[in-house]
Amino acid sequence: MAYQEMNIEGRNAVIEAFRSGKTVDKLYILDGCQDGPVMTIKREAKKHDTMVKYVTKERLDQMSQTGKHQGVIAVIAAYDYAEVEDILQKAREKGEAPFIFLLDNIEDPHNLGAIIRTANLAGAHGVIIPKNRAVGLTATVARTSAGALNYTPVAKVTNLSKTIEELKKEGMWFVCADMGGTSMYQLDLKGPMGLVIGNEGDGVSRLVREKCDFIASIPMKGDIDSLNASVAAGVLAYEIVRQRLQ
Amino acid sequence: MAYQEMNIEGRNAVIEAFRSGKTVDKLYILDGCQDGPVMTIKREAKKHDTMVKYVTKERLDQMSQTGKHQGVIAVIAAYDYAEVEDILQKAREKGEAPFIFLLDNIEDPHNLGAIIRTANLAGAHGVIIPKNRAVGLTATVARTSAGALNYTPVAKVTNLSKTIEELKKEGMWFVCADMGGTSMYQLDLKGPMGLVIGNEGDGVSRLVREKCDFIASIPMKGDIDSLNASVAAGVLAYEIVRQRLQ
Repeated sequence: MAYQEMNIEGRNAVIEAFRSGKTVDKLYILDGCQDGPVMTIKREAKKHDTMVKYVTKERLDQMSQTGKHQGVIAVIAAYDYAEVEDILQKAREKGEAPFIFLLDNIEDPHNLGAIIRTANLAGAHGVIIPKNRAVGLTATVARTSAGALNYTPVAKVTNLSKTIEELKKEGMWFVCADMGGTSMYQLDLKGPMGLVIGNEGDGVSRLVREKCDFIASIPMKGDIDSLNASVAAGVLAYEIVRQRLQ
Repeated sequence: MAYQEMNIEGRNAVIEAFRSGKTVDKLYILDGCQDGPVMTIKREAKKHDTMVKYVTKERLDQMSQTGKHQGVIAVIAAYDYAEVEDILQKAREKGEAPFIFLLDNIEDPHNLGAIIRTANLAGAHGVIIPKNRAVGLTATVARTSAGALNYTPVAKVTNLSKTIEELKKEGMWFVCADMGGTSMYQLDLKGPMGLVIGNEGDGVSRLVREKCDFIASIPMKGDIDSLNASVAAGVLAYEIVRQRLQ
């Protein structure tokens, strides 16, 4: 399994987990505990917007795997990220033109999970997410991906537009959904394709948008501005599927 | 505005709201209050899985519009449901063949909101939901619809398959997404169309499925079973949009 949950127990271990940038999904703290290291942990949790539950000593003892929780247990998601090269290799093994999702700062874990689920079913070979600012692979993402996280490799990169440049050298083309583009039905999306999905509020960032070969617009016949990010990803991904099936 | 939030204040009024089947989005109770009627309200809240917040008297006084909260304030969503006839009328006014979403027991408010958002942008004239068992129009639905709830009429019906029968007499056709159907790319979906979306776990119920003229399958090239319900709705809705644009 590529994805699993893990307990981190004890004060120093939990502080270290926060400081090394691990995503703590849930934090259990002994109710009423107020001493120094625990206050430090509470501050870190607040800084990272972590869900905190105050529980009894009995509950912590029950949850503990080491028996040495010292009043704090953090649940973190452990995931073996893939490399971009693994994703390309997967396409080669299947004898298919690469089809990769690139997520430009998706913030909502439900959207991230639903998009990984869509990537799996649309036959994409993998998903690339940026290291910073976006949501990582939390327990919520794993759950909403409906198991897809165990099949579809996810790679984390430092700079999305640099990764796009490198993949262009491999012969890939890139399309993003954004306003003011060409109707997706009029684009030729049959080749080796990277599908770029923008942030829920801000869309695709300027630097990434400039690297795209195609700006696709999804026809909008209504009164509001835009589709939900995971729905937009699904609609555009399936236009690629349709064209590839022809 | 078709949608707004409303306070219900006082013990009897709140108990009555629960018992008459209103959807209470949030319940504020005076912290520490333990007497009979408040315990009854807590039991009702537990039964309906309502979010409860325990607050101070000062906070309740501040929130109260009547000044007579008696230690409890319930926030409910008030929405003027449309009639099915209003939706057909909207299509007539626009001079378009009717395009209606029918939701067969969507349970997740995020999905319901995202689907209403998609219905708006795909140019559907309205959404029909069943009275029982499914999620209603809560604050979460309103928020995730990104404003679409103020434009796209939503009608509530007692029996979805009976409504389908009646709409067939008006010349409408019905398509649902389900496994074992015909590829959606091979169906002719250009006419007056009802798009039926099934429940997140169970799909479309047997009775409703039997009433559908077309069972459409979305090509699945991956390892898992199905798309997220709101993504599937988006993908199939946009296949209808594509065919209508031709």
